[in-house]
Amino acid sequence: MTATPSTEMRTEMSTETTDGLRKAVLPESEIPTHWYNLLPDLPEPLPPHLHPGTKEPVGPDDLAPLFPMGLIAQEVSPERFIEIPEPVRDIYKLWRPSPLYRARGLEQALGTPARIYYKYEGVSPVGSHKPNTAVAQAYYNHVDGVSKITTETGAGQWGSALSMACALFGMTCEVWQVAASYESKPYRRMMIETYGSTIHSSPSELTESGRQMRKDFPDTTGSLGMAVSEAVEAAATDPDARYALGSVLNHVMLHQTVIGEEVLKQLAMFGETQADVVYGCAGGGSNLAGLSFPLLRENLAGRTSTRLVAVEPAACPSMTQGRYEYDHGDVAGLTPLMKMYTLGRDFVPDPIHAGGLRYHAMSPMVSHVVHLGLMEAMAVDQDEAFAAGVLFARTEGLIPAPESTHAVAGALREARACAESGESKSIVLGLSGTGVLDLPAYQDYLSEKGTDA
Amino acid sequence: MTATPSTEMRTEMSTETTDGLRKAVLPESEIPTHWYNLLPDLPEPLPPHLHPGTKEPVGPDDLAPLFPMGLIAQEVSPERFIEIPEPVRDIYKLWRPSPLYRARGLEQALGTPARIYYKYEGVSPVGSHKPNTAVAQAYYNHVDGVSKITTETGAGQWGSALSMACALFGMTCEVWQVAASYESKPYRRMMIETYGSTIHSSPSELTESGRQMRKDFPDTTGSLGMAVSEAVEAAATDPDARYALGSVLNHVMLHQTVIGEEVLKQLAMFGETQADVVYGCAGGGSNLAGLSFPLLRENLAGRTSTRLVAVEPAACPSMTQGRYEYDHGDVAGLTPLMKMYTLGRDFVPDPIHAGGLRYHAMSPMVSHVVHLGLMEAMAVDQDEAFAAGVLFARTEGLIPAPESTHAVAGALREARACAESGESKSIVLGLSGTGVLDLPAYQDYLSEKGTDA
Repeated sequence: MTATPSTEMRTEMSTETTDGLRKAVLPESEIPTHWYNLLPDLPEPLPPHLHPGTKEPVGPDDLAPLFPMGLIAQEVSPERFIEIPEPVRDIYKLWRPSPLYRARGLEQALGTPARIYYKYEGVSPVGSHKPNTAVAQAYYNHVDGVSKITTETGAGQWGSALSMACALFGMTCEVWQVAASYESKPYRRMMIETYGSTIHSSPSELTESGRQMRKDFPDTTGSLGMAVSEAVEAAATDPDARYALGSVLNHVMLHQTVIGEEVLKQLAMFGETQADVVYGCAGGGSNLAGLSFPLLRENLAGRTSTRLVAVEPAACPSMTQGRYEYDHGDVAGLTPLMKMYTLGRDFVPDPIHAGGLRYHAMSPMVSHVVHLGLMEAMAVDQDEAFAAGVLFARTEGLIPAPESTHAVAGALREARACAESGESKSIVLGLSGTGVLDLPAYQDYLSEKGTDA
Repeated sequence: MTATPSTEMRTEMSTETTDGLRKAVLPESEIPTHWYNLLPDLPEPLPPHLHPGTKEPVGPDDLAPLFPMGLIAQEVSPERFIEIPEPVRDIYKLWRPSPLYRARGLEQALGTPARIYYKYEGVSPVGSHKPNTAVAQAYYNHVDGVSKITTETGAGQWGSALSMACALFGMTCEVWQVAASYESKPYRRMMIETYGSTIHSSPSELTESGRQMRKDFPDTTGSLGMAVSEAVEAAATDPDARYALGSVLNHVMLHQTVIGEEVLKQLAMFGETQADVVYGCAGGGSNLAGLSFPLLRENLAGRTSTRLVAVEPAACPSMTQGRYEYDHGDVAGLTPLMKMYTLGRDFVPDPIHAGGLRYHAMSPMVSHVVHLGLMEAMAVDQDEAFAAGVLFARTEGLIPAPESTHAVAGALREARACAESGESKSIVLGLSGTGVLDLPAYQDYLSEKGTDA
């Protein structure tokens, strides 16, 4: 495991033991200067994205109508470390470095000898990890002179993150939100408007693909795949606009690696030489990749032996039940074909509260890593996830996002196994966001199970 | 201005200039070890609270049915510094020290030579400053063997904070919430239930005073004063329960001083020798007192000359329009009489979005300080406050609580005056909480003013 000189210095100088430490906090000056790109370290190269028409590998020119050149270059970069532009780091300072907590209250409640840590990304202004890439994407569009970015959003985490990032660069954002969430979860829609952006219910009458989907499925409440089609079409048909995606693509995984880079430094502050096991929730894969890829680098270099575990919802089990094959990222088939674990692009998962995990496929990089056996995958059902979330709230204070509760559930299984076996493992879980805007989901769970659940 | 040796050391050792610093972050080890008690430093003693029946100064025995002895002692303590118990500091670690930000985005948008700082208390798990005292109050009740605490809440910030604190000490909380908020703002009610506590709409049928108020005012949507009466009665009639108040009382002001103590250290990290002016929003007064009393100590000792400004809503102007006289803290007249700025205990303010500022009176300590001329008071209307909040969100990313937007509005007036005059003042504002659960209020404002407001 690597530790920067300044981290080592701080650790040595501190007269405080780590016995009572609950959170490791890094100063702004230790925000990572580089994103980590796993691509060149992969033992087998990532299968290329294919053009949806020709089925040939996509080149920069194919992507140029949708993305700025800075991001296109990152999508296939052979560089292991890519410098984070200064304006992006400057905005990261609004919430980064994010804290790594030792879950002492949770450990005590479980009576486990395990040491449980959680990396909390809910400290960002919109309450999730999404701004890590939203700010980077807004920046590269901004330097290209783009004034408007289109995107899709499910529960609204990504749309609100991109809207905030656009506001900070003086741009606007146009968001297509899955109709079911647009109606039932108005808070993130209001957040998007507060940042000065525009939001539509999807499928809408504003795009050709939206009109077609409304014709084909008159009763639909929308899906992320449909909303992707609309946002892509809107950008492709407007010369002043570009498109942005909040997960799945390689450059999104790249931007999120600030999470794992900080975790490496923060574990050292707690006196840990490595994480024995890491649990991250997985929808499109970006939070999981951001947390785990820097740790995977340390594994591949032989410096650590950390088990990496992706936790997906049983209702949308792309990795544990899907097939590893080329598929589109959207319903209409406008995106490139990507090799990934997929349930089929027309798969519509049952409504579950973890909206951010309701995606038919998994990021190609995460899929590849799982396929190569470098990461495990497991599925947990919604009740187990919420039970974990409620226990977490009552022992740690923070109410996890429904997505994050899946990682908590995975870590709880491990910590309880440690209580049985007496093993004292170090467990790291990714708390990708806060659940304060998802309290109706907790309410539904508690109504069903009783408040003592 | 005082600076601890460790602060000075860090400042000297740092090779980084503060030029690009956006937030000053202190490690856990610099969480204050003591609360600061302004009482012994007041140039004139605080008028005592009076018994509602005898009109004589209340003694410890009068308060014992409602409060634990630890808090009763703090209410009249002559000690300048009171040690924070280790279990309280341990829970503070979940979010403290909170960051002090330099509002570089806002400064740039205003074109002001002023340096604007904001102290952000929204990093607590419930998103406000309230847990600073909730955890302390839960602790002193816990050591007295109390298993249940009753309280009132308006919009829900205090009820959710106390519920979290109770959960962390293995206790429960019973909350009476103003009916209007209970119906229209369900998220914090759900938060309270997620923490395992119970919540009722007030006025309720569960108490004598609730039943009386429902009889006298059949159409009432409740008020904070009514809810106080119900919670006090419930505690007074249950030998296993005690009562807790989230603002107004001296011990609450005391607990919140961790805010200002941290600000003193953090200003030094930015290279500031003092704040030239401080703006805090004022409802019951606790956030304002917590932010400003440690700075007032420095003023009284002749080390600084910081202007302290309380910002209240024009719709509930206790300090700028009320009278400085003895009044009850609740509608039914169950609480002690306290000398404070008041609009009359039966004053029901117009519905405004800043629920936390809708209180008929002002904390006796804050009132006294204003009366002595040691602090100024001003009022801003709701539109000015929301305009300030929207500008803040679009330039700093964070969406302030409607209460906090009043402090932002005060600071904006000062910063704009600096832009006119060319003065380069250091301005500190208290951002007492996040507005993510108050987005419908922003929505109402934007609907009326247009999204480009």
